[in-house]
Amino acid sequence: MAAMQPADATPDITSTANPRVKAVAGLRERRDRERTGRTIVDGAREVRRAIESGVVFDEAFVCVPLLQGPDARAALDRLTQAGVRITTTNPTVFEKLAFGERAEGLVAVVRVPSLALDDLHLPADPLVVVLEGVEKPGNLGAVLRSADGAGADALIVADARTDPFNPNVIRASAGTVFAVALAVAPAAAVIAWLRAREIRIVATRVDAPAAYADADLRGPLAIALGSETDGLSEQWAGAGIESVSLPMLGIADSLNVSVTAAVLMYEARRQRGRPAV
Amino acid sequence: MAAMQPADATPDITSTANPRVKAVAGLRERRDRERTGRTIVDGAREVRRAIESGVVFDEAFVCVPLLQGPDARAALDRLTQAGVRITTTNPTVFEKLAFGERAEGLVAVVRVPSLALDDLHLPADPLVVVLEGVEKPGNLGAVLRSADGAGADALIVADARTDPFNPNVIRASAGTVFAVALAVAPAAAVIAWLRAREIRIVATRVDAPAAYADADLRGPLAIALGSETDGLSEQWAGAGIESVSLPMLGIADSLNVSVTAAVLMYEARRQRGRPAV
Repeated sequence: MAAMQPADATPDITSTANPRVKAVAGLRERRDRERTGRTIVDGAREVRRAIESGVVFDEAFVCVPLLQGPDARAALDRLTQAGVRITTTNPTVFEKLAFGERAEGLVAVVRVPSLALDDLHLPADPLVVVLEGVEKPGNLGAVLRSADGAGADALIVADARTDPFNPNVIRASAGTVFAVALAVAPAAAVIAWLRAREIRIVATRVDAPAAYADADLRGPLAIALGSETDGLSEQWAGAGIESVSLPMLGIADSLNVSVTAAVLMYEARRQRGRPAV
Repeated sequence: MAAMQPADATPDITSTANPRVKAVAGLRERRDRERTGRTIVDGAREVRRAIESGVVFDEAFVCVPLLQGPDARAALDRLTQAGVRITTTNPTVFEKLAFGERAEGLVAVVRVPSLALDDLHLPADPLVVVLEGVEKPGNLGAVLRSADGAGADALIVADARTDPFNPNVIRASAGTVFAVALAVAPAAAVIAWLRAREIRIVATRVDAPAAYADADLRGPLAIALGSETDGLSEQWAGAGIESVSLPMLGIADSLNVSVTAAVLMYEARRQRGRPAV
């Protein structure tokens, strides 16, 4: 076990040509993630949060000389306790696995949870966030982090242009991607699914005349947000869909989507009277 | 004038050894910005917003073959109308000036406005944001963007570890850095300045038991936020300073500072009853 090894022990894998190393490094590519149903988690905090969220781990790779900080040691201990197979590598091999990420000497391979709409189980009066057409992993990760903080019951990615278990999304979400109930589906299917469950849709649009704080954000609710480039598509303008905007009081015409999402979600929480902190 | 030049005309500067090119590229370094009182603005939207905010332009550099999109053409027209000296370069020289930024064929040199506390002119009942010890240009830029959107009357950077006119801050702020009233000072001086003006301080701390939405955010108010790594220093815990937090309802213990700032500022706006949109 890596945790028991002295720092100068010979690592289990020392060649970047090792087929296991190649297979794991391949998970940086969407194609390999989709084919295998696996993804890579970089970093101690992210690994720890994946463990706490009940994600299924296949294995982990550790570079002992690079292991930094109490977080990394704690994450490694948790993996060891859980009986996850741990393989040590030298720094060169680890660099290939970590692909330039600040992974603190620890990467793990996990199974991607189901992203099917019908696998979402929502409580009564759910607060759902829908993000349409998001392109940048950093933005999706940031929205996930806000959704986790605000206690959204689910995040649905409509017409995804990036997959939620892209390692860069995992990192940008600070590992919260594993804790937020998540689904991916075409926008039309998402709208039909929400309507069938009588979940009211509030669409955020920069040009909507109604201010978000004047909208009733209680009850079963989906807050829909578009991509930064295009905003929401016209599909989110049908009967019964209310459009709102954030007051933009300066020179810019829009905020980052994770900021817009957070302001809306926290206003919904405030209106719902959820016991604070 | 570049705007009149055909795309195949010989550029004014074709050598990266040109001393003007070296001097402008040097503005990527804090030392050169502080010595000259100048900074670089990359990109069409950022240049346009700097013009609209009344920033003083020294000159601009254009690479005609790289000029992309209506925004870039419009910005160039505005510079031309304002009589700003425009120099054309070839792509190699432009790359040196733009330093890998997606500058869309346009960079400008502008004068850094005053950052003195005493040059801040606040309206009655000001809404001020104080950001202490911020390190990452991306975070400072994101807070500026949120402050612009929420109509904060000033942003004060306390114990700055990055300068607000770092080109990466300008870019991350989407050019809003030029529109937000801005000052930089040591934390102790900021606290004294706020107290002297009877501006109430609300400090955001992840461990504060009071929820932000229960606090009275009306009247003359400064919302203080710390860096992501360290939070606010103990200086922000004195008499009369109220601490609040955002409810964190998921697995993470904090949000990105720009998200926290936006939720607080928009809640203050809501409580103040500012006419929406």
